[in-house]
Amino acid sequence: MTDTITISVDAMGGDNAPRAVIHGAHLLLKERKNARFIFHGVQEQIAPLLEEFPALKPASSVRHCDVVIAMDEKPSQALRKGKGTSSMWMAIQAVKDGEADVAISGGNTGALMAMATFCLRPMEGIARPGIAAIWPTLRTDIVVLDMGATIGADAQQLVDYAILGSALARCLFDEKSPTVGLLNVGTEEVKGLESIKEAGRILTEASGAGFTYHGFVEGDDIGKGTVDVVVTEGFVGNIALKTAEGTARQVGRYLSNALKANLMSRIGALFAMSALKALRAKMDPRTLNGGVFMGLNGIVIKSHGGTDEIGYKSALGLAYEMGRNRLIDKISDTMKRFPVKAVPAALATEPEA
Amino acid sequence: MTDTITISVDAMGGDNAPRAVIHGAHLLLKERKNARFIFHGVQEQIAPLLEEFPALKPASSVRHCDVVIAMDEKPSQALRKGKGTSSMWMAIQAVKDGEADVAISGGNTGALMAMATFCLRPMEGIARPGIAAIWPTLRTDIVVLDMGATIGADAQQLVDYAILGSALARCLFDEKSPTVGLLNVGTEEVKGLESIKEAGRILTEASGAGFTYHGFVEGDDIGKGTVDVVVTEGFVGNIALKTAEGTARQVGRYLSNALKANLMSRIGALFAMSALKALRAKMDPRTLNGGVFMGLNGIVIKSHGGTDEIGYKSALGLAYEMGRNRLIDKISDTMKRFPVKAVPAALATEPEA
Repeated sequence: MTDTITISVDAMGGDNAPRAVIHGAHLLLKERKNARFIFHGVQEQIAPLLEEFPALKPASSVRHCDVVIAMDEKPSQALRKGKGTSSMWMAIQAVKDGEADVAISGGNTGALMAMATFCLRPMEGIARPGIAAIWPTLRTDIVVLDMGATIGADAQQLVDYAILGSALARCLFDEKSPTVGLLNVGTEEVKGLESIKEAGRILTEASGAGFTYHGFVEGDDIGKGTVDVVVTEGFVGNIALKTAEGTARQVGRYLSNALKANLMSRIGALFAMSALKALRAKMDPRTLNGGVFMGLNGIVIKSHGGTDEIGYKSALGLAYEMGRNRLIDKISDTMKRFPVKAVPAALATEPEA
Repeated sequence: MTDTITISVDAMGGDNAPRAVIHGAHLLLKERKNARFIFHGVQEQIAPLLEEFPALKPASSVRHCDVVIAMDEKPSQALRKGKGTSSMWMAIQAVKDGEADVAISGGNTGALMAMATFCLRPMEGIARPGIAAIWPTLRTDIVVLDMGATIGADAQQLVDYAILGSALARCLFDEKSPTVGLLNVGTEEVKGLESIKEAGRILTEASGAGFTYHGFVEGDDIGKGTVDVVVTEGFVGNIALKTAEGTARQVGRYLSNALKANLMSRIGALFAMSALKALRAKMDPRTLNGGVFMGLNGIVIKSHGGTDEIGYKSALGLAYEMGRNRLIDKISDTMKRFPVKAVPAALATEPEA
């Protein structure tokens, strides 16, 4: 694995698997010649697809698994059924065994998080894992976490997310000391929850350990790109992400309706076609596909399950970058530099089996 | 007050007060001939403005107040300083005294909520007030609450918000039984907090008492307009609102940059000008200005503080509608029809003075 980046792929995860997954890998390989793939899944479904994309074949190996986790399976149920047998579990296991740099799945998020946590275990000093999103803003892409791995977070967990998120930002954006903000509400006197205030105090003291603490930010600071990393508890992060997705779709629909409104606007849309196409590409949710599971002893990427080969290519590309930039090392480095990180080694949270 | 709707106005609240406030009232009066205004504030500043808008004069009265609450004053401080003396307090007091149907201010939100709660007191059976936003969606406008009046909410408070929000929706949208959804995260097994699940059980039983309970909704359901009323705790609501505002602004900026990208796109924008203008008007945050304070014995509307006369006209128009449709009566009616509403009369929460 000297010069190659190996991605361990749950070929069966997602609505359009395995075709869209394999096709996406084919697209990534065209751009990233040193990418290598281990596909986990039903051999008879994967083999013919590799024949269709012959360039992919020499860069790939296939590991047969019979068991596939359904999109609606409960995490505990998925773990019981799929531990050590399913394509999802085996994709993660390959990272644990050092065969791959990073794992990826478009399957059931809850099941993937449960399996990843159970198989890879949280890093020493990190109590619970988080899911980070790469969020486009008016300034540049930024990192927002947690997107819902965990509901509720105390001050120490928010601090953990700051450590994890800033390490990710350093991987992605080549920033030496990314700025970190804590998501909060604006009203002065009620300014948020005690946990957020306490996390703010800890981060103020620790600023400089691989990140620069900026202070509190509000919801509209996300789209502005006020900071490189926005830290929040998982329930709020999930609602913010989906609300933003919904709003972007809504405004896009308004625009396309407006351009169909009358003859003049239709003519205008023809003239502006190339610019509008570029705008559509910019707003295409497939181009920024992939949540990064953070805080485990290994990297796992969650792709949107409903996406196509373009979306899988993006998510696989994100996985590739995470492997190439050695995200785990960057996190460990921040942890070492963190002055007040005196939490006892976390107990791995085992989902009830 | 048989045929007129009287709006009690804090003329000094907001960055462009009192000019933008008075100008906004002038604009509303042109459309709503039976609107009447009581302006509370510094006489010497208000009087010359009424000379500028002579049509407004016969529909207005002015009550002089020396004390003006600053935008950065803490609620407790504002209450100490402004109780019984400030333009903000006096605007609310006129509703309590039955002189006006509704009060409005563009001032400091925290101070306004503290004063409104202290002066008007929560309705019997409602523990804590909430702030509702009117949210544009792909289907129609909807109601979302709480926008941050309270941080944290137990099941009973969420149920209260459902009662309040559905009454507001009945006022605004002429819906006999608006649909109500509880904002939650999607992952099946961790599906949200215990408080939300419990609220869901209560609302399922109570469905029909002036609303139809739809179930859980996610962040992207807001922009879709899946339900008429989205209920959430104040921290989450505030983050969702501001994230959506930020996203709408971001996409708008993308669009305007795209249309400036090249000569063809500039020509296209000229052709589509009328449609793009209509789109801009649709997305203008000033046209849906105003948070509705819900759950008190009287209606108070909060206008954005930074808006202009157009924004104030919208907020005053919202106030007018609330008065005309007798929001308070509609809430009481829902409360009476609510089968399991067996909460003891709430204690008025007094901010520490």
